[in-house]
Amino acid sequence: MQIGILGTGNVGETIGTALVRKGHRVKMGARNALNDIAASWVGMNGENASQGTFADAAEFGDLIFLCLNGEKAKDALMMAGPDTFAGKVVIDVTNPLDFSRGMPPVLVPSLSNTTSLGEQIQDYLPKAKVVKALNTVTAKLMVDATQVGGGDTALMICGNDAGAKEEVKKFLSEQFGWRDYLDLGDITASRNLEAYVPLWVRIWQATGTPMFNLKIVR
Amino acid sequence: MQIGILGTGNVGETIGTALVRKGHRVKMGARNALNDIAASWVGMNGENASQGTFADAAEFGDLIFLCLNGEKAKDALMMAGPDTFAGKVVIDVTNPLDFSRGMPPVLVPSLSNTTSLGEQIQDYLPKAKVVKALNTVTAKLMVDATQVGGGDTALMICGNDAGAKEEVKKFLSEQFGWRDYLDLGDITASRNLEAYVPLWVRIWQATGTPMFNLKIVR
Repeated sequence: MQIGILGTGNVGETIGTALVRKGHRVKMGARNALNDIAASWVGMNGENASQGTFADAAEFGDLIFLCLNGEKAKDALMMAGPDTFAGKVVIDVTNPLDFSRGMPPVLVPSLSNTTSLGEQIQDYLPKAKVVKALNTVTAKLMVDATQVGGGDTALMICGNDAGAKEEVKKFLSEQFGWRDYLDLGDITASRNLEAYVPLWVRIWQATGTPMFNLKIVR
Repeated sequence: MQIGILGTGNVGETIGTALVRKGHRVKMGARNALNDIAASWVGMNGENASQGTFADAAEFGDLIFLCLNGEKAKDALMMAGPDTFAGKVVIDVTNPLDFSRGMPPVLVPSLSNTTSLGEQIQDYLPKAKVVKALNTVTAKLMVDATQVGGGDTALMICGNDAGAKEEVKKFLSEQFGWRDYLDLGDITASRNLEAYVPLWVRIWQATGTPMFNLKIVR
């Protein structure tokens, strides 16, 4: 499959590397087509790895991962051009975290409580099918659900398009070993998935490890 | 033990009834000393149950539960008089939920993200030891942790006073069967525990039951 990844941070690199290893062709997109970090990543990942602009990555991907800095996500999507995403399934892994007040972070106030980055991204990309997923676990766990509890934890997702959510679940199950999903409804549930992340940081601080996930016990 | 409960809603009644049955003396406080709901509760719970004003309940309790409507909590505490709580351990079960926009609720905007009701309550009651606890589970589960997963889930708590948190943990273990706690730090973690509650409502909607709690799987 051809995968576009927007963003060159740890999350984008981790997902990109995992998917290249699974035999997919992955293009990492950045503001600059010659971005150094992307070039280094391409150098380490062989012929199935490539780089380009945000627009190049979005155009390349049959499936697109948004691994952008939350505060810069809108700019990146505007640079890529919203029409580039038309008809595509977009997995939104972003979180609008504000670290300017120290740890643990708060949400960017303008993207909290009554709205969310996930909702705004769906608004920026009206022709795309945005599915919020993976933003609630650490990068290493995103790409291998079996790392905690033998894979017996739930991944929270949401999005407006039921078919796109099924595609995402199938893909994440096959590629990354996720077995259990907690589908929280339409894209407005992004506000709840994103609001969980400052709590997630607190739990990391309390437990001493980011390698955990939630199990809903009934 | 003498317990003061501020608030006459489902949470206050459930906790009050459970504690009377355990042999404690419980006073339910309301705005009006003759509150009808409190009177009905007293009538059903025998001689160890009593009622009074918010001030009466706060004065009565060796331990105090705040089971107030989030938007009215400050008024109730001001009516009781902050000095009434001096030196006491106060378990804050409140949530600042705003249902005016429909379901699921959002947090009251002025009490979200960069602050919380728990923090403000500690500010209103500077001489009390406020411990945020039980606000993340449904009332029936608050008073009997064994109702889900045989009790093998974690209750999230926070507060500034380590000794008070130990007292609360001991009390909730002995009275309500809680065995595992996730201590998220000082009272500023209230913003994370409260932000979890709109997500909790989403999970309720997705699973069809409020009888669940989280297990942190590492």
